[in-house]
Amino acid sequence: MRCIRLVVEYDGTPFSGWQIQQGQPHVRTIQGELKQALERLVREEVLVKGASRTDAGVHARGQVAAFETSRENIKLVGFERGVRGFLPKEIAVRSAEEVELGYDPRRTSRGKRYIYSIWNDSNPTALDRQRVWHVPAPLNLEAMQEGANRMLGTHDFEAFRAAGCSAKHAVRTMYGMEVRRGPQNRVELVVLGNAFVRNMVRIMAGNLCEVGQGRMKPERISEIIASRDRREGGPTAPPQGLCLEEVIYDDRLPPRPKDDQDVDGED
Amino acid sequence: MRCIRLVVEYDGTPFSGWQIQQGQPHVRTIQGELKQALERLVREEVLVKGASRTDAGVHARGQVAAFETSRENIKLVGFERGVRGFLPKEIAVRSAEEVELGYDPRRTSRGKRYIYSIWNDSNPTALDRQRVWHVPAPLNLEAMQEGANRMLGTHDFEAFRAAGCSAKHAVRTMYGMEVRRGPQNRVELVVLGNAFVRNMVRIMAGNLCEVGQGRMKPERISEIIASRDRREGGPTAPPQGLCLEEVIYDDRLPPRPKDDQDVDGED
Repeated sequence: MRCIRLVVEYDGTPFSGWQIQQGQPHVRTIQGELKQALERLVREEVLVKGASRTDAGVHARGQVAAFETSRENIKLVGFERGVRGFLPKEIAVRSAEEVELGYDPRRTSRGKRYIYSIWNDSNPTALDRQRVWHVPAPLNLEAMQEGANRMLGTHDFEAFRAAGCSAKHAVRTMYGMEVRRGPQNRVELVVLGNAFVRNMVRIMAGNLCEVGQGRMKPERISEIIASRDRREGGPTAPPQGLCLEEVIYDDRLPPRPKDDQDVDGED
Repeated sequence: MRCIRLVVEYDGTPFSGWQIQQGQPHVRTIQGELKQALERLVREEVLVKGASRTDAGVHARGQVAAFETSRENIKLVGFERGVRGFLPKEIAVRSAEEVELGYDPRRTSRGKRYIYSIWNDSNPTALDRQRVWHVPAPLNLEAMQEGANRMLGTHDFEAFRAAGCSAKHAVRTMYGMEVRRGPQNRVELVVLGNAFVRNMVRIMAGNLCEVGQGRMKPERISEIIASRDRREGGPTAPPQGLCLEEVIYDDRLPPRPKDDQDVDGED
């Protein structure tokens, strides 16, 4: 047996999220499409594990997936190019490498970097419409950064967690929170954290846009965190603005504590 | 009567180019969709002029269009927001302003800036697949820039002109030719010129990729220009990598000579 690790990019637009929905074979998911394509390649059943369970409409440049196969005669480059013909064009394998058997891309990850993109102009964008949240009112980026700074560090992010999240608790550590101007009229929120609860980055983006429009003071973010109550916060930003840029495994981030079993329910 | 000038952005993917195809009402064009949407807004027939006749599949961030209307009671912001509901989501009006009657966005333009985007990686991209040309072989950007420099200045670009171009001649001036790295694995060719013949930027990109792959020397570009023969050059790059970024009217570029009537047949 061999274990193959893939870095996967996808346009989340046509999919009902990463995870296969049991008993609903007609719902298109990224995990399901990958499983199907890989099974056509290796001609045996495979189980595809992912590092992040992205929601419907959420994109990824650097999702990490892994699967095991008994096929010894397929070269690594074959997993990159061989699946290409079996995958829809909205999913692309960026690279493949061989890793130790039993490899778990979620449990071994040290963190994830997401970018949430906002189109901040009175008029919408045509070219980037499936990649941004259109916020017409002018945003105060300094205020947003002030609010974002209050999310840095380790907090119980219960107030930034959607209903239905399966994680045991919502204590997470944010290593980086940057609000910056992107190309054209884009405003980008770059979030680097050890792990995330359901819809966490989208709820962060929704709250920070309230701050950016002056409907909420930056200090209010600390109060919302302290409330541990989702009803205290602002809206959840829509999925198409979110992209999983990278899953981090190396020394740029500290390792997870050994007793940290709570890697469930992530976005 | 009033004349309204619009800056228009579009995702060219679903359209058969800018220009209305006479006698083919079922062919979707950007000019046709704009005309239809504007006519629903102003409730009279309009003629929509454009600065550039982009090809099928080519995108624009800054196309410039103009039309005249007898409707005096619609505010400028109405032309931005009012048409929104009548336009497909692949077309967005970025801004509207009132200009003098008879305004011609093509004849008054001093130049155009295009970006041609290449995805230079052995594997394709999923997220940007409709915006780039996938070139798997590694590109030598220094050699490409050397080739691009040979296109700078005023030349007869007959060898960079597709069949069916209606321009009287192919003498054009390139003010800027830059080969640069873009985000991720992108290589971008930024072209600033006074005007363009049919498929000119795509033929430039096709030739420069030959240079970048070492299949053609940079000096060969000068020979191809001098040949004035399209058969001497490399392939035409596909349309989805091309985007009309900006049409330039201001003092960043010199005015067109008064006797320059040859503004026809542009890409």
